Amino acid sequence: MRSLMVVLMAVSSFPACVSELKGVILDLCGVLYDSGEGDGVAIPGSVEAVNKLKASNLKLRFCTNETQATREKFVGKLQRLGFNINVSEVFPPAPAAIAILTHRGLRPHLLVHDGLLPEFDGVETTDPNCVIIGDAAENFSYQNLNQAFKVLIELEKPLLFSLGQGRYYKETDGLKLDVGVYMKALEYACDIKAEVIGKPSQMFFQSVLSDMGLQPHEVLMIGDDLVSDVGGAQSCGMKGVQVRTGKYRPSDERHPSVTADGTVDDLAQAVDMILSHRGH
Amino acid sequence: MRSLMVVLMAVSSFPACVSELKGVILDLCGVLYDSGEGDGVAIPGSVEAVNKLKASNLKLRFCTNETQATREKFVGKLQRLGFNINVSEVFPPAPAAIAILTHRGLRPHLLVHDGLLPEFDGVETTDPNCVIIGDAAENFSYQNLNQAFKVLIELEKPLLFSLGQGRYYKETDGLKLDVGVYMKALEYACDIKAEVIGKPSQMFFQSVLSDMGLQPHEVLMIGDDLVSDVGGAQSCGMKGVQVRTGKYRPSDERHPSVTADGTVDDLAQAVDMILSHRGH
Repeated sequence: MRSLMVVLMAVSSFPACVSELKGVILDLCGVLYDSGEGDGVAIPGSVEAVNKLKASNLKLRFCTNETQATREKFVGKLQRLGFNINVSEVFPPAPAAIAILTHRGLRPHLLVHDGLLPEFDGVETTDPNCVIIGDAAENFSYQNLNQAFKVLIELEKPLLFSLGQGRYYKETDGLKLDVGVYMKALEYACDIKAEVIGKPSQMFFQSVLSDMGLQPHEVLMIGDDLVSDVGGAQSCGMKGVQVRTGKYRPSDERHPSVTADGTVDDLAQAVDMILSHRGH
Repeated sequence: MRSLMVVLMAVSSFPACVSELKGVILDLCGVLYDSGEGDGVAIPGSVEAVNKLKASNLKLRFCTNETQATREKFVGKLQRLGFNINVSEVFPPAPAAIAILTHRGLRPHLLVHDGLLPEFDGVETTDPNCVIIGDAAENFSYQNLNQAFKVLIELEKPLLFSLGQGRYYKETDGLKLDVGVYMKALEYACDIKAEVIGKPSQMFFQSVLSDMGLQPHEVLMIGDDLVSDVGGAQSCGMKGVQVRTGKYRPSDERHPSVTADGTVDDLAQAVDMILSHRGH
């Protein structure tokens, strides 16, 4: 009964946007796969769902707050999991961060995952005048957080960039604290507000739309994070659909400020509904 | 010139409360001593200042958010530094927390410093229904914070107690992140508000006043933390004086919401001013 109601709810909100849909943006972790030991595991039906979207006339991009690896390594992992994805289709925060550093002449102190460091090769990091934090996971030791704090507190105007603002994500062995938690920690320590690079930043979504050459109302975002994926997309004028995989929790469906345009069991169901309503 | 102005400012705000003063509450770390390797170091003049207060007719208590050791060990350290202090005069958050646990039938998951654990001997911690965090320092690893998060997020109504809410404190080798930073991290992760046990909690200050048998307007608090010590005392109706030792920063003197009733170079100066205005 519940499942039927949910599908009906989702169906009822799909048609309006599906009829004029020209593109889809997919979140990755929690939608295509669950991360964990090794490469993690593909979510059942998601490899085929991506293939179906690629075979349609919809433009497809992948928008992620993944910051544990370089874009090349990360896409390689997705390819090993069976996904037909290329580097140029994937938009993570680190390249956007580097563009900002260059534009504003900033030298970062980096508190990020070891796997992300090569992305910053060639970026000047001596005598830092800002701090960048990513999903550093085990690198979020007391010592490392304290070091980032000391850099910030010594600056006349502490400048903190956070690659995303997620609360937590799901790995195969359970929920893991995400970068947003440490962003809040440093914000409080220094009495500052961080600049978020990545979802749900409007600038970040706009850069993906611009690459697609589409207007917001022509694009649907599908993600497992109600606030960053769905809410972020909606605040840019896109529709946002949440999947019940990854970090989804039932309480998301009664969130006080963000209501998804549709809620579906998984990516496979979302894609079938999109394509069936378009006659593909 | 600056020093003279500052003394004058402080003097001008002292007399009103000094004339009817019956007791003094002192913060410990950053006022009596700076923590660090081993026992840390006494701040010059503070041993004598405590002795002068004890020789006066003022009641004296020590109110601290120290949670890295049991009260007995902590007081032992202060005695080794030369201070004339007894366990019964010192009020830290852990005993207050245990009283709350007992009163409300709670079983905590503890994320605290190893040195504080013996304080919780005899407290039931299996099948936890709340989380208590203290200044865990190196124990604030990613793994430990994640474990505390998992306990909270599994509870129907996550309940987090924080032993203090300080941003940072000063050790002999520099500033260190305090428990408040990790409180904010877990608050954000679980979308909850922690209950603070310790300064600046009014209930905590009231328990000290009650032990002294004095009214708030009869007592002066001296601390290095503008918000927790000075602001907390003021919100209870006490006067609050800040010392320029410990975590004091010049920007404290233009804080947007808390203004100390006096700002002095150190405890020695504060005590001399109090006693000279009382004719001792």
